[in-house]
Amino acid sequence: MAEEREFTSTEITRAYRTSGIREECGVFGIYSPAHENITEKIYYGLTALQHRGQESAGIAVSDTEGLMYNVSFHKDMGLVSEVFHKEDLLKLKGNIGVGHVRYSTAGGSTPENAQPLVINYSKGTLSLVHNGNITNADELRNELSSHGAVFHATSDSEVIASMIAFHRTRSAAVEEAIKKTAERLKGGYALIVMSPRKIIGVRDPYGLKPLCLGKISENGNDTYILASESCALTSIDAQFIRDIEPGEIITITKDGLKTDHLPAVDKKAHCIFEYIYFARLDSVIDNISVYGSRIKAGQALAENFPVKADLVAGVPDSGLAAAEGYAMKSGIPFRMIFKKNSYVGRTFIKPTQEMRESAVHIKLNVISETVKGKDIVLIDDSIVRGTTMKQIIKQLKKNGAGKIHVRISAPPFLHPCYYGTDVPTSTELIAHNATVDDICSFIGADSLGYLDVSDFQKMVGDLPICKACFDGNYPVM
Amino acid sequence: MAEEREFTSTEITRAYRTSGIREECGVFGIYSPAHENITEKIYYGLTALQHRGQESAGIAVSDTEGLMYNVSFHKDMGLVSEVFHKEDLLKLKGNIGVGHVRYSTAGGSTPENAQPLVINYSKGTLSLVHNGNITNADELRNELSSHGAVFHATSDSEVIASMIAFHRTRSAAVEEAIKKTAERLKGGYALIVMSPRKIIGVRDPYGLKPLCLGKISENGNDTYILASESCALTSIDAQFIRDIEPGEIITITKDGLKTDHLPAVDKKAHCIFEYIYFARLDSVIDNISVYGSRIKAGQALAENFPVKADLVAGVPDSGLAAAEGYAMKSGIPFRMIFKKNSYVGRTFIKPTQEMRESAVHIKLNVISETVKGKDIVLIDDSIVRGTTMKQIIKQLKKNGAGKIHVRISAPPFLHPCYYGTDVPTSTELIAHNATVDDICSFIGADSLGYLDVSDFQKMVGDLPICKACFDGNYPVM
Amino acid sequence: MAEEREFTSTEITRAYRTSGIREECGVFGIYSPAHENITEKIYYGLTALQHRGQESAGIAVSDTEGLMYNVSFHKDMGLVSEVFHKEDLLKLKGNIGVGHVRYSTAGGSTPENAQPLVINYSKGTLSLVHNGNITNADELRNELSSHGAVFHATSDSEVIASMIAFHRTRSAAVEEAIKKTAERLKGGYALIVMSPRKIIGVRDPYGLKPLCLGKISENGNDTYILASESCALTSIDAQFIRDIEPGEIITITKDGLKTDHLPAVDKKAHCIFEYIYFARLDSVIDNISVYGSRIKAGQALAENFPVKADLVAGVPDSGLAAAEGYAMKSGIPFRMIFKKNSYVGRTFIKPTQEMRESAVHIKLNVISETVKGKDIVLIDDSIVRGTTMKQIIKQLKKNGAGKIHVRISAPPFLHPCYYGTDVPTSTELIAHNATVDDICSFIGADSLGYLDVSDFQKMVGDLPICKACFDGNYPVM
Amino acid sequence: MAEEREFTSTEITRAYRTSGIREECGVFGIYSPAHENITEKIYYGLTALQHRGQESAGIAVSDTEGLMYNVSFHKDMGLVSEVFHKEDLLKLKGNIGVGHVRYSTAGGSTPENAQPLVINYSKGTLSLVHNGNITNADELRNELSSHGAVFHATSDSEVIASMIAFHRTRSAAVEEAIKKTAERLKGGYALIVMSPRKIIGVRDPYGLKPLCLGKISENGNDTYILASESCALTSIDAQFIRDIEPGEIITITKDGLKTDHLPAVDKKAHCIFEYIYFARLDSVIDNISVYGSRIKAGQALAENFPVKADLVAGVPDSGLAAAEGYAMKSGIPFRMIFKKNSYVGRTFIKPTQEMRESAVHIKLNVISETVKGKDIVLIDDSIVRGTTMKQIIKQLKKNGAGKIHVRISAPPFLHPCYYGTDVPTSTELIAHNATVDDICSFIGADSLGYLDVSDFQKMVGDLPICKACFDGNYPVM
Repeated sequence: MAEEREFTSTEITRAYRTSGIREECGVFGIYSPAHENITEKIYYGLTALQHRGQESAGIAVSDTEGLMYNVSFHKDMGLVSEVFHKEDLLKLKGNIGVGHVRYSTAGGSTPENAQPLVINYSKGTLSLVHNGNITNADELRNELSSHGAVFHATSDSEVIASMIAFHRTRSAAVEEAIKKTAERLKGGYALIVMSPRKIIGVRDPYGLKPLCLGKISENGNDTYILASESCALTSIDAQFIRDIEPGEIITITKDGLKTDHLPAVDKKAHCIFEYIYFARLDSVIDNISVYGSRIKAGQALAENFPVKADLVAGVPDSGLAAAEGYAMKSGIPFRMIFKKNSYVGRTFIKPTQEMRESAVHIKLNVISETVKGKDIVLIDDSIVRGTTMKQIIKQLKKNGAGKIHVRISAPPFLHPCYYGTDVPTSTELIAHNATVDDICSFIGADSLGYLDVSDFQKMVGDLPICKACFDGNYPVM
Repeated sequence: MAEEREFTSTEITRAYRTSGIREECGVFGIYSPAHENITEKIYYGLTALQHRGQESAGIAVSDTEGLMYNVSFHKDMGLVSEVFHKEDLLKLKGNIGVGHVRYSTAGGSTPENAQPLVINYSKGTLSLVHNGNITNADELRNELSSHGAVFHATSDSEVIASMIAFHRTRSAAVEEAIKKTAERLKGGYALIVMSPRKIIGVRDPYGLKPLCLGKISENGNDTYILASESCALTSIDAQFIRDIEPGEIITITKDGLKTDHLPAVDKKAHCIFEYIYFARLDSVIDNISVYGSRIKAGQALAENFPVKADLVAGVPDSGLAAAEGYAMKSGIPFRMIFKKNSYVGRTFIKPTQEMRESAVHIKLNVISETVKGKDIVLIDDSIVRGTTMKQIIKQLKKNGAGKIHVRISAPPFLHPCYYGTDVPTSTELIAHNATVDDICSFIGADSLGYLDVSDFQKMVGDLPICKACFDGNYPVM
Repeated sequence: MAEEREFTSTEITRAYRTSGIREECGVFGIYSPAHENITEKIYYGLTALQHRGQESAGIAVSDTEGLMYNVSFHKDMGLVSEVFHKEDLLKLKGNIGVGHVRYSTAGGSTPENAQPLVINYSKGTLSLVHNGNITNADELRNELSSHGAVFHATSDSEVIASMIAFHRTRSAAVEEAIKKTAERLKGGYALIVMSPRKIIGVRDPYGLKPLCLGKISENGNDTYILASESCALTSIDAQFIRDIEPGEIITITKDGLKTDHLPAVDKKAHCIFEYIYFARLDSVIDNISVYGSRIKAGQALAENFPVKADLVAGVPDSGLAAAEGYAMKSGIPFRMIFKKNSYVGRTFIKPTQEMRESAVHIKLNVISETVKGKDIVLIDDSIVRGTTMKQIIKQLKKNGAGKIHVRISAPPFLHPCYYGTDVPTSTELIAHNATVDDICSFIGADSLGYLDVSDFQKMVGDLPICKACFDGNYPVM
Repeated sequence: MAEEREFTSTEITRAYRTSGIREECGVFGIYSPAHENITEKIYYGLTALQHRGQESAGIAVSDTEGLMYNVSFHKDMGLVSEVFHKEDLLKLKGNIGVGHVRYSTAGGSTPENAQPLVINYSKGTLSLVHNGNITNADELRNELSSHGAVFHATSDSEVIASMIAFHRTRSAAVEEAIKKTAERLKGGYALIVMSPRKIIGVRDPYGLKPLCLGKISENGNDTYILASESCALTSIDAQFIRDIEPGEIITITKDGLKTDHLPAVDKKAHCIFEYIYFARLDSVIDNISVYGSRIKAGQALAENFPVKADLVAGVPDSGLAAAEGYAMKSGIPFRMIFKKNSYVGRTFIKPTQEMRESAVHIKLNVISETVKGKDIVLIDDSIVRGTTMKQIIKQLKKNGAGKIHVRISAPPFLHPCYYGTDVPTSTELIAHNATVDDICSFIGADSLGYLDVSDFQKMVGDLPICKACFDGNYPVM
């Protein structure tokens, strides 16, 4: 799926909405009981989660030293490194905080919808970060509106925050209000709420969206961290403790951790998309290594679609891990055959029609010497419209490559996702309009094989998964 | 040499001056006799040469349609994608043009020194792009000053341009003036001059700096291109023709190519640094593939420093090719064991002292599952201060790696370069202050081996090379 | 009051908070039944009201052509000309709209508090602009909070909007909801609400804040306009119709005008501050010309403090009109004796301590020839700290002026304003800490006279006025 | 000439080139023998000269403390307050300096042409600021080119600097080189050259361009200043000493002042345009007060074109002084009848065609009460296309004014200026295409009178003047 990962920010990602696989969000929360400033840690944690959303970024912190607390926040459209300058970080002082990177799946792409969402109500201030999609958000919004609620923007998050405030006004504790709210939410979500002196994390009962817990122990104090992926913990040298359980509500206060649960559902359903595309290679989610699962996808491809070849290569960066897996299983050597231009970034001007043919060369060049006279197994994680793969193969052949056997480390998408993952719609996907043979012929490959849905379980062992975008079986509506 | 390649632009590269290996420049020239607009091709060509300089970028074009010509240019500090916006490209109309990306080696780091240098003189307009360093620039500057010349900036390029103008005022043709000027230049250089209706390229007699020729043939017209590296040709779908010979002066006009030569020197001396560090992996320079030469460096390391291990890995991106070579020779599998965060770019805020220990985690994370219990051969292309490598090894061990055998695909630098390559000074390099054993112990490796200077010839066959920065034998002063 | 009017924008106006007289807000609303785009008219209307607030500016429009309506808005910190670029205006399409310029008197100085405030609720969208201060805002906020309302910012406007939404959810029409809300509001205010197909204006029952109605008749259609001051009507060539009455609720729909009234209060109280300082010279408010009232202030000064002199001059621009009045009454010629530098704007760097003495020269220079040997009556509208006036007089004397008789066209402030006008606090004002004689001596004048509170009525005829900031009699708390 | 003075910066001033009277440049130089930092003084001096050019601004300073000197400079397109931020001023450290504000009259409108021009040559560094136009610049450029000189930009200044460098290379002292250069220059000019330890000022032999000398005496040290106008001296509290004589070369060093002269010309010719339009009201040039000369122009109009009226008013700000003069002579009271909107600045969006009629209202509004039923003498300093005056009169009549008698305080332009003042070309001026009666009728006035060329001498006493743009008698070509 090389074509979806090249560009990195707002302007570009907007184009994806009509053309590619859309991404989701990353959330981060942290509590330092020793009153250390945690803003820098949020910044680096969000940088590690940047692959989960490049549209907007934000941080809210609460300074709870003393009798009063002080909540401050900063958020805007753009990458973490674009939104935050040194002076912004210096202004955000606090020992509790939440952070967010966003690629919108519901709600428009506007600054008003950037997170954290910070609201004031009769009981104080709530700061909320959210990854996922609430399928009954409109129903809840109408319900709250009928009680007189007023909304400034169009995000699910504002609905959740309003409902928490509604219950909190009538409840004893914010944890209770969050529980009452979460009981009403349908869909997949990972939420972190900062209620100035507490951090509360919630994961949907199916476990559709990931959330994990980490810890930094210094000078006898434990700073706890919640994050969408373990790579955010590693990046700040925190220790991974465990995944938050599906349906778990975890509360972090000065007294440590407290846990509660939403009513159980009969079957968990972790999102397979995290493993095959979305999560970072070095993360471990629900005890399954993302890297390991992709290695296994490559191995399954080697079993299902064996072929005689001189080398195995991956399209950078999305096909590399599965290529290693294919190589391990098949015994064919794994080689680097492309040079990717890392300077083709967000502000890069796209080629005019006249030079469109060259577009793929600008981003990706074949290392001629490696491919000359070689039969190649070429791995990527998807074929969207097929035009990029066609150009890559044309370039390989022009550089003297022999046969090109394409292997795709995921099955074609067939169904929309209702839980916050924007999979391409039918009409955008070549797989919907053509047989595997037709696609093979269109892209100019000598053979083509897709991973089968039945191989998913090999990738993740006995982890219960949601693979609705491939098979249409939705765990919750 | 991972630490030198992470950041990409002005502010950051300035830091390199005191801390790392400095980079040079990239030049590009193009002539369309069919009067097609070539600005977009220069933009993409420069993007492919961006690794040669991230400090400033510029394009000058000449529109020679009709009786008059019109020269326009745009240049500024920053990456190609930062300097040029769509409207800038639209304003630059021309069928002849030159482009430049720069990392300054002589002349201050100021907008005034950005190239192309465009001057007006009695015979019209000259636009000049230059890669390299003129060792007798001060002498030539004084000589021209004594004739009354006035200088606006401090670059070698202005000296060269002034001297060309000086001779052109007294000569028949601009090629002649360039030849007379080049006969006086000492040092290593690749020059491209646009004299509104011609493009003239010159390479120094030793062949220290690279320059090659390409062609796009469309509708019966040949558009010729000059570029520092062949990867710039590939990126715009041009055909590689040949390298410009050392001491060659090539003139491109509407009538095609014309060639002339500077007086020969007794011995050529191509820069080894281009192969081991500087040029892009997919370029071929003087008939030697950059990628192939690094593979051979890795193979030589495997021969010189064999070791028993479970896998071979490279520090991304600088150590990857040599790691492949080591793997091929040793039979130990080549594996990817790091995830590099591609969002850590130019505007990224560097960690405060308090979090400095985590700095390497933010950029580079170990994929835990791959390294647990494994003995590893770890390849990089240099060790500058040693602190980054020390952190990488610490992280590997923390993730359960067994023995770490470090192999460096180049010898330590011992001498300054006078030809436009900023190698680190003695005091900055750990290799100057410590034995190999001391370094091995400092970085926490289980063994350490450097490529030997005598292995260079294996990398490049019988190509005559300059390796003065390693052995102190300067071909020209 | 020359020192308060020199700088024009955010950064600078913030400084006023501690040092000078703070300004309020300007509101604007417009309805084109013929579906003409009214955005440009709002832009120019707000430009005419810019003197009422330079901290933020915003426009919200509704396009009601067809069955659906579409509300869009743009607002930010800065002057109208800084907030809106051509492309912003082009994006805002609508035939109904409201606009706002703001200098905050309640609520923090943040982008979140910029207006128009646009909210979504069960009955659609409300856009609100507001000038004034609600003295019981906290009480109302708590009341709404106790019903579960959630607030994103800290402005009075959000309280008003929430209360309108609250009542609208339970009422038949938005006009009714606005009336119920306004009945609860205490303080001085002029509100304009856009409820996508209507514009509703409300003025507080005391008439503390100004609001007037205008009309543009073209092709048989009447476009109605509401604005804080008549100068906004003139600037778009609209005809002034009448002032909105104290306590009036005026509704503009496609069917024209409809009017309603809040319960009457026993006594009207129009703000005298609008006439003496705040409103624009060419506005007419409640049938009193601002210019005329200042002329009368000058005449009253001439009566109360006659003196023999060669010329009368005003400190530009705040003292000019009263100077004309003094001249008319006294028969002494009115002359221009200062040149004001109009390039000393918002981004101007203020002098360092070392050059502080020269500060007044940079903004204001004496035209030497006019003052040499002349006795001068010098008029300004206030003396805040006295330092500027001291410098001006020093400069006049240096240029050879004879006697300087200072006349101030308003009495000293003695009491805070609770209705949205930030008068300086006691501690900031020289008048609180010194007698008139002391001040006269401090500034170096030969005589000094202040307008008496009893002269206000001469300025405005029989208009009932609030002059609480001078005499402490507050009409409503 | 109200329409030419409303907007203030680059984008806008460019429009003037085709539509109005173009402005020139302002120069400033300063020398502190006591080694005080003079950068802030240059900044404020340039701010006072801003009316002389809004296109670009720049400062170059030399720090001569100790044995070495250090020249630094900063310049860019824009107003002084836009080009210089606090950090820019802090970086410029020096006790000698020159500054410049520019509206280009020769040379394109590009950053390359911004001044000061700083060049390096065999004898060191020269920094040059220049106001005026050299009529034989092309001839001198070709002459220098034929000696091999190379030019980076297209300004006269570069020609002057090159010629100074040419002579300096062959002369004993920089003053000598400047004298030799100035002897070759034709046209009108005021030059200031900083040769790191000296400031040298030169004024053309006719005295076409103004230049004056000032002094600040502190702690026994005399800091000397050169500036285009005396208002720049006043703004930094410097004492005016005298005007530089036509043809004088003044050199300021640590030892004080030294003076020399160019060969005398038979007749001086000071530019009348400075008095009638260009210089600042509070400046005194060649012993004539600018304000005073405009008063006299108004008085002459009152003599030539007497009329019965109720009040005299000026179009702000260009017509105010002459209106005062008319009032003094005629005995008719001088009144302010317009409110000018000072927020209509550089980034203001101009009205679309649809609202073009309102354009003048946006900038200038009539104070209704003052004009109702009054016959008015209305003064401005020019009528360019006539459309603005037509709108103003229409607005006055709409507000109930009686008769409008227009008086213009200068004659119509009939000839181009070759000395650096961009007067409108014939085709742009209504006066070229119509009789006075026709213009009067076009603008809707009841009578119209222009100042006669013969009245100029009344304005400036016995000062010899150049009035070539009115009568075609050029003092030098």
